[in-house]
Amino acid sequence: MDSSSGSSGSTPPPAVCLVSGGMDSAVTLAEARAAGFACHALSFRYGQRAVCELEAARRVAESLGALQHRVVDVDLSALGGSALTTGGAGADAIEVPKDRAAEEIGKGVPVTYVPARNTVFLAVALGWAEVLGASDLFLGVNAVDYSGYPDCRPAFLRAFEELASVATAAGAERGARFRVHAPLLEMSKARIVERAFELGVDLSLTHTCYDPVEAGGRTLACGCCDACLLRLAGFEQAGRRDPVEYAPRSR
Amino acid sequence: MDSSSGSSGSTPPPAVCLVSGGMDSAVTLAEARAAGFACHALSFRYGQRAVCELEAARRVAESLGALQHRVVDVDLSALGGSALTTGGAGADAIEVPKDRAAEEIGKGVPVTYVPARNTVFLAVALGWAEVLGASDLFLGVNAVDYSGYPDCRPAFLRAFEELASVATAAGAERGARFRVHAPLLEMSKARIVERAFELGVDLSLTHTCYDPVEAGGRTLACGCCDACLLRLAGFEQAGRRDPVEYAPRSR
Repeated sequence: MDSSSGSSGSTPPPAVCLVSGGMDSAVTLAEARAAGFACHALSFRYGQRAVCELEAARRVAESLGALQHRVVDVDLSALGGSALTTGGAGADAIEVPKDRAAEEIGKGVPVTYVPARNTVFLAVALGWAEVLGASDLFLGVNAVDYSGYPDCRPAFLRAFEELASVATAAGAERGARFRVHAPLLEMSKARIVERAFELGVDLSLTHTCYDPVEAGGRTLACGCCDACLLRLAGFEQAGRRDPVEYAPRSR
Repeated sequence: MDSSSGSSGSTPPPAVCLVSGGMDSAVTLAEARAAGFACHALSFRYGQRAVCELEAARRVAESLGALQHRVVDVDLSALGGSALTTGGAGADAIEVPKDRAAEEIGKGVPVTYVPARNTVFLAVALGWAEVLGASDLFLGVNAVDYSGYPDCRPAFLRAFEELASVATAAGAERGARFRVHAPLLEMSKARIVERAFELGVDLSLTHTCYDPVEAGGRTLACGCCDACLLRLAGFEQAGRRDPVEYAPRSR
């Protein structure tokens, strides 16, 4: 789970980097490159409401020098259970919470939790890592702001590393040890904003909002869902201005 | 990993059963029902060559009394790396091996191995289990005939159970222990055929072949891929006749 250097040999070792289009995974990809890895970016079309995330992921992967960017379809919306994948209408719809206080956001398992999402994403990343001959996975999880998500915790990442070593031909036959790097795990949102500036990440390319607003042909962040509130607080604490556009009422 | 009874209460406990359309997962579903579970059947559209597997899965789930059957899209073919998901034409195509001797089939990791497939499938099953409030997963893996697949081994199943307990809200917040039942794990193919007859599984509904042949509007098993050869040997050893149709050359 450390982000130790991969640059010991002459050829940069390959790594699979999960890129959602958000700020955290963009900074994680930049950390992987800075650590000397040749990065293969992976995104998912998983039934999320905010499909513009994928366009942001493509821009982020390209701007940060990923060797390639693949989008894999995993239709988690077929299983139900989260405000992020159930539609906005109909009896099963779960509303994205708005304007919650900061101390409320981190508590318990939120309705935006998608059951086993990071387990599914890491499993697919592991499959691609096997094909590429990579044994390093990068994931932009953060234990500070998302303490309510069980699959963002160190115990989860360690258990996945154990699983990977017995789940794969590389691990079971050739003794490969997989590492799940989560360089942002212990960073505050303000620190993540600072790292983005230090690593030259163009945050105007990222998309964070759970519930974006379409206005005049542009996609604006709502500014009041949990993800927007945490992002905005991070910029404020870092003393920086967020370059993405927000819907009028929120600023 | 045991298949201990789930019938202690008055309401049958829910279980998620992976159903591929093949013989092994059909018998596994029948074992889950016989153990007293209310079964929710799960299949995947993962870019497999043999899409008729999904039609077989639907028939099997219905005939064995599953409460529901869901098909989730996970496009593993986007990652490459297996004869089961790469197309039959083009530079990347990997041929399905034919007419191999029985002692050859179990050795090493075969080209039909799909990287991390069972990890991905169990991860999605885990997500559905969370939504359903289930803590039992049933998987038709078999360590005897598929010793070459690392994700069919007991060490893999135990590692997944450990992961599940920290990956989920149910496990991390409420102490739920997930169990991955693999009742066929130590059975020979002949024993699986016998169990099918004992449990009343209609094997004519199942589809096993990796590389089926279309002939006169019917889908015939090839009779010479590894999966067909293992299946046919199992029927022969059990002294039973396989009710599915094979392409002429093979019988």
